[in-house]
Amino acid sequence: MTSLVLASASAVRARLLAAAGVAFDVIPAHLDEDAVKEALLAQNTPMRGVADALAELKALRVSRSHPEALVLGADQVLVFEKELVSKSPTVSEARALLTRLRGRKHELIGAAVLAKDGAAVWRHVDSATLTMQDFSNAFLDDYLAQEGEALLGSVGCYHLEGRGAQLFAHIAGDYFSILGLPLIQVLGALRDQGVLAS
Amino acid sequence: MTSLVLASASAVRARLLAAAGVAFDVIPAHLDEDAVKEALLAQNTPMRGVADALAELKALRVSRSHPEALVLGADQVLVFEKELVSKSPTVSEARALLTRLRGRKHELIGAAVLAKDGAAVWRHVDSATLTMQDFSNAFLDDYLAQEGEALLGSVGCYHLEGRGAQLFAHIAGDYFSILGLPLIQVLGALRDQGVLAS
Repeated sequence: MTSLVLASASAVRARLLAAAGVAFDVIPAHLDEDAVKEALLAQNTPMRGVADALAELKALRVSRSHPEALVLGADQVLVFEKELVSKSPTVSEARALLTRLRGRKHELIGAAVLAKDGAAVWRHVDSATLTMQDFSNAFLDDYLAQEGEALLGSVGCYHLEGRGAQLFAHIAGDYFSILGLPLIQVLGALRDQGVLAS
Repeated sequence: MTSLVLASASAVRARLLAAAGVAFDVIPAHLDEDAVKEALLAQNTPMRGVADALAELKALRVSRSHPEALVLGADQVLVFEKELVSKSPTVSEARALLTRLRGRKHELIGAAVLAKDGAAVWRHVDSATLTMQDFSNAFLDDYLAQEGEALLGSVGCYHLEGRGAQLFAHIAGDYFSILGLPLIQVLGALRDQGVLAS
């Protein structure tokens, strides 16, 4: 059987795949994501195209050095008020972001690409709309104190599989995609590509 | 603050609430669920009504002995070809069920009820449609061997948070409800009821 490589350093993506019983190696693609995003946005690339292009770049980069393997690249972008939001580097910036998002809707766009022999062979993009509840400053203080720097790993500063669920009034979209990997679709593609039995 | 009691022995429901940072006690409601279901179906109760009534009965039973607490009852029913499917007591019956469900759609209806002082104060019902992939007998053998009796804890004989994800071609519905508790809605109700800060 073809072997699978996850071209991502994300612990959540690895955990989702492993929990589903998939065997894989992890070889993160080292990419200057911010520079690529800026270049794509300067060319008026739509937000879905940004996520898709980043997922593809990651998969292709690792595929070139592992042409015999199937390589999975993934990306996720957060869109708020038509702008792409970057990861918060500090808890103080996380507080500022969550204060802006509170009581409002934002969108998470997730993309996944499978590559083999240096070429993309499968791709998937979807989006979810998440509405935060209008939490108080006291709630936010408590949330930040409990979560600490762990929340900086997620672009939206929340983990839906943990305490972050308390931030939301409403969620419309695929849970796995919100976590960072459209698992059901990826599993289907892995069956089609002969990596998983069916 | 009012204390919360989970009137369910389900480890998954307890895990979802705990992961979201909710404090609660577990006091399972002892109910002859099969007898109640039969009685409700004999009265032509719609499937959503069966799930809702079972969730309410569990919440009310525990609420009567703990009137000061907010009590959360939950239930989930699986509907296939317009019939309610019961839990499989053996791996052999799980195999028979999964053979019937394979390549087809089924529906999971989830209900949650909050009760206080012996009366329901909040309720929620929703449903999800799940389509299984057309897996082979060899795949099913391997799945049953890997999962063993653990899969008997779920009415559909799968855990979406584990290897069970490989069974599906498509899923439409709320992930948390599919696992057994509409978490986002329950958290909102707990805020409204003063059990959680907002």
